[in-house]
Amino acid sequence: MGKIIVDISMSLDGYVTGPGIDLEHGLGIGGEALHDWAIRSEDPVDAAELRRATDESGAVVMGRTLFDFIDGPTGWTDEMGYGAAQVGKPPFFVVTHTAPDKIRLGLDFTFATDGLSAALSRAQKAAGAKDTVIMGGGDVIRQAVDAGLVDVLNLHLAPVLLGSGTPLFSGAVPRGLVQTSVRPSAYATHITYEPSR
Amino acid sequence: MGKIIVDISMSLDGYVTGPGIDLEHGLGIGGEALHDWAIRSEDPVDAAELRRATDESGAVVMGRTLFDFIDGPTGWTDEMGYGAAQVGKPPFFVVTHTAPDKIRLGLDFTFATDGLSAALSRAQKAAGAKDTVIMGGGDVIRQAVDAGLVDVLNLHLAPVLLGSGTPLFSGAVPRGLVQTSVRPSAYATHITYEPSR
Repeated sequence: MGKIIVDISMSLDGYVTGPGIDLEHGLGIGGEALHDWAIRSEDPVDAAELRRATDESGAVVMGRTLFDFIDGPTGWTDEMGYGAAQVGKPPFFVVTHTAPDKIRLGLDFTFATDGLSAALSRAQKAAGAKDTVIMGGGDVIRQAVDAGLVDVLNLHLAPVLLGSGTPLFSGAVPRGLVQTSVRPSAYATHITYEPSR
Repeated sequence: MGKIIVDISMSLDGYVTGPGIDLEHGLGIGGEALHDWAIRSEDPVDAAELRRATDESGAVVMGRTLFDFIDGPTGWTDEMGYGAAQVGKPPFFVVTHTAPDKIRLGLDFTFATDGLSAALSRAQKAAGAKDTVIMGGGDVIRQAVDAGLVDVLNLHLAPVLLGSGTPLFSGAVPRGLVQTSVRPSAYATHITYEPSR
């Protein structure tokens, strides 16, 4: 069975979005800087990070707020994210209380109303030998780390202070981590950790 | 004139101490893990970080809470920190409202009651061509970064989630950073940033 991997960009002050997120501004004020390494960089280290993340994804788990942005008016397109035509399209599992009435994107979305742990189990089954990636938001990731469900934390540390926004780890259960790999680029520091159980 | 450098260890969730700091527990609960790279590591990358930090310090600025711990019953000894006999002893400037009645450590402490900016100016003058290091606590560092007084941010990112404690950047003024150097070791990721003005 594949691993459960967190893969997310974080500011130096620990935010995964800036303040003021809404349906059209999923990253909030100033939050685009979190993704400079993925969007603006021509550093091959960054390109390899993006490629690895999509190559290894057998299934993707996300929270409802993130889904609503991704499927919203300024969300994924055929050129962006997993909506991009050229990349593989893994099944997506959205942790939510109720499924939405309609979906814009033509992707394989399953709405899991039985909680995060059950959603992760179903995603792992769908992923087969490949990994299951938790892509956000911050709440879902923190819950998964706190519950000891995460095998690998793959963080992209962006060189920016956002000041406020959606914190990733604020209030997390104290936990040691093993730092297994650091890959600096011109636009970020990519660090992989394995949480202690 | 030398640069103004922040040099501090931070947890992955952005804390420079754990919860529950007092005069005898300056790093709070679990906070010792922040300094594993400095205390427990035999990685030459970590040794070089420590050496560079002390070599380049022409003067040191700190806040009062940090001073009270350092000069307190479990603070610096002849074997620890700048109290160590074998390292150079730069002049220290403590930002405070009132000077303490007595000092335990036999070091060159000046109590600056005229504010952070004035304390930094006096420290820079004392440092001559060498750098002035702001070693903490979190409040003093955040104030200096917010005021645009810092030339270099030298962070030691420890692989630990503390969950709570003294945040370094929480509530900081939003600001871009230029990531100038990343030095991974077995115990931490050492990253140098230059704040955008």
